[in-house]
Amino acid sequence: VIGSVALVGAGPGDPGLITVRGAHLVAQADVVVTDRLVAPELLDLARPDAEVVDVGKAPRRGPSQEAINGTLVDRARRGLRVVRLKGGDPFVFGRGGEEALALAMEGIPFEVVPGVTSAVAAPALAGIPVTHRGVAASFAVITATLAGGERNDLRRIASVVDTLVVLMAAGRLEEVCGEIGAGGRDTGEPAAVVASAGTPDQRVVVSTLGTLPERAAGAAIEAPATLVVGPVVGLSAILGWGGRVTDGVSVVSRGQAPAHD
Amino acid sequence: VIGSVALVGAGPGDPGLITVRGAHLVAQADVVVTDRLVAPELLDLARPDAEVVDVGKAPRRGPSQEAINGTLVDRARRGLRVVRLKGGDPFVFGRGGEEALALAMEGIPFEVVPGVTSAVAAPALAGIPVTHRGVAASFAVITATLAGGERNDLRRIASVVDTLVVLMAAGRLEEVCGEIGAGGRDTGEPAAVVASAGTPDQRVVVSTLGTLPERAAGAAIEAPATLVVGPVVGLSAILGWGGRVTDGVSVVSRGQAPAHD
Repeated sequence: VIGSVALVGAGPGDPGLITVRGAHLVAQADVVVTDRLVAPELLDLARPDAEVVDVGKAPRRGPSQEAINGTLVDRARRGLRVVRLKGGDPFVFGRGGEEALALAMEGIPFEVVPGVTSAVAAPALAGIPVTHRGVAASFAVITATLAGGERNDLRRIASVVDTLVVLMAAGRLEEVCGEIGAGGRDTGEPAAVVASAGTPDQRVVVSTLGTLPERAAGAAIEAPATLVVGPVVGLSAILGWGGRVTDGVSVVSRGQAPAHD
Repeated sequence: VIGSVALVGAGPGDPGLITVRGAHLVAQADVVVTDRLVAPELLDLARPDAEVVDVGKAPRRGPSQEAINGTLVDRARRGLRVVRLKGGDPFVFGRGGEEALALAMEGIPFEVVPGVTSAVAAPALAGIPVTHRGVAASFAVITATLAGGERNDLRRIASVVDTLVVLMAAGRLEEVCGEIGAGGRDTGEPAAVVASAGTPDQRVVVSTLGTLPERAAGAAIEAPATLVVGPVVGLSAILGWGGRVTDGVSVVSRGQAPAHD
């Protein structure tokens, strides 16, 4: 009997932001494959006898993507029900497509359970809607890794969308903000970086495109971090319900959220 | 005692795609405000004594946005815990920002619980990753409503991103695909429309930018529908795990998903 694999979006840092179906599949799984971008609390949902495979900082500083694919195929071939947890959504810069292709090529039954993507949720958790009527009617998502010619893409995309979201932006803020400015965005335009979104360590720096890199450096922003540029960022001053957000090195802890529990 | 409001992303059609935190808040709520884009099964999570306010086809053909804002403020002022369910994610063309602003202006405590956005999930549920290494390193999201000058935006954005996602595309496919072509995309490029994503009525038509409108008309595609254009659409032939996806009027029912339960 062949097993199966579910590629499950684990959402951004907050373990409550996994889907109900994703949580159900984790609870049923024989094997859970996880990595550093997944909230560790989600492993508490797994059966005590489930095998947990943590690929850590893969694929850059851990097992290769091929090794991960091989683990998924191997466990499914043994008849096991496998859940592969992916930070955010599996298909938004998550290499979920590569894992799904590997499974399809090997004839392993699989499904994809979409998740809450950090591209939308990290800004949201800082009180920034990526769209807002009369303010922003489009948004684009790109990564800061700038591999293979994406540098030009960043400039061109920055020049045409209302809201620009850049994932994996920590450590490259100066370079990325410079490219966005080179794409024609005003250096006075509101910009924010959200680090460790949805976790108790969430940190938000709101400033302008021109000054954000310096301000973020002062606030010790670390990965994972999401950059958002556009007039919607200005709404965070009113909608940043997790704490006060102002220009500068303000740090917002989500632990202050006032709503009901 | 003042109440509070949670703006909760209900995800696309599948009720299992609400977040764990969102489901928890629905189960605790005194009042649940919903609309036609929210899976009706989610109301079964509410307490039997909870008030359910269905604003139906608002704001276009139902209560105005102001009336909905007023309902949220009114119930919170009575000390009630209110959950406002929004299809997809509250901040992706959901007017969640407007509701949040109204609450902030009235001093009502609120939080936003991000959801699974149809912009990513509708393609995913048809086996289409919006990004894929070596195929697509950027995506943009826009609506087909084309209000207030967005027509030009559609052309310009289509010309620079790898994957273009257009929400609320049903009924405007011919116009929208024409604009995307006018933006410089090849009419032979793969394109798909996904209707009623995540529900038992999910229908997917995969074709090319040039022929999709005619094929979709033949397949009786209805709202809500998401259009996706770009080379990643070609992956659906392999990754469309819910059934066979081929060029033409193929219809995919998600009910055929083979993975474990």
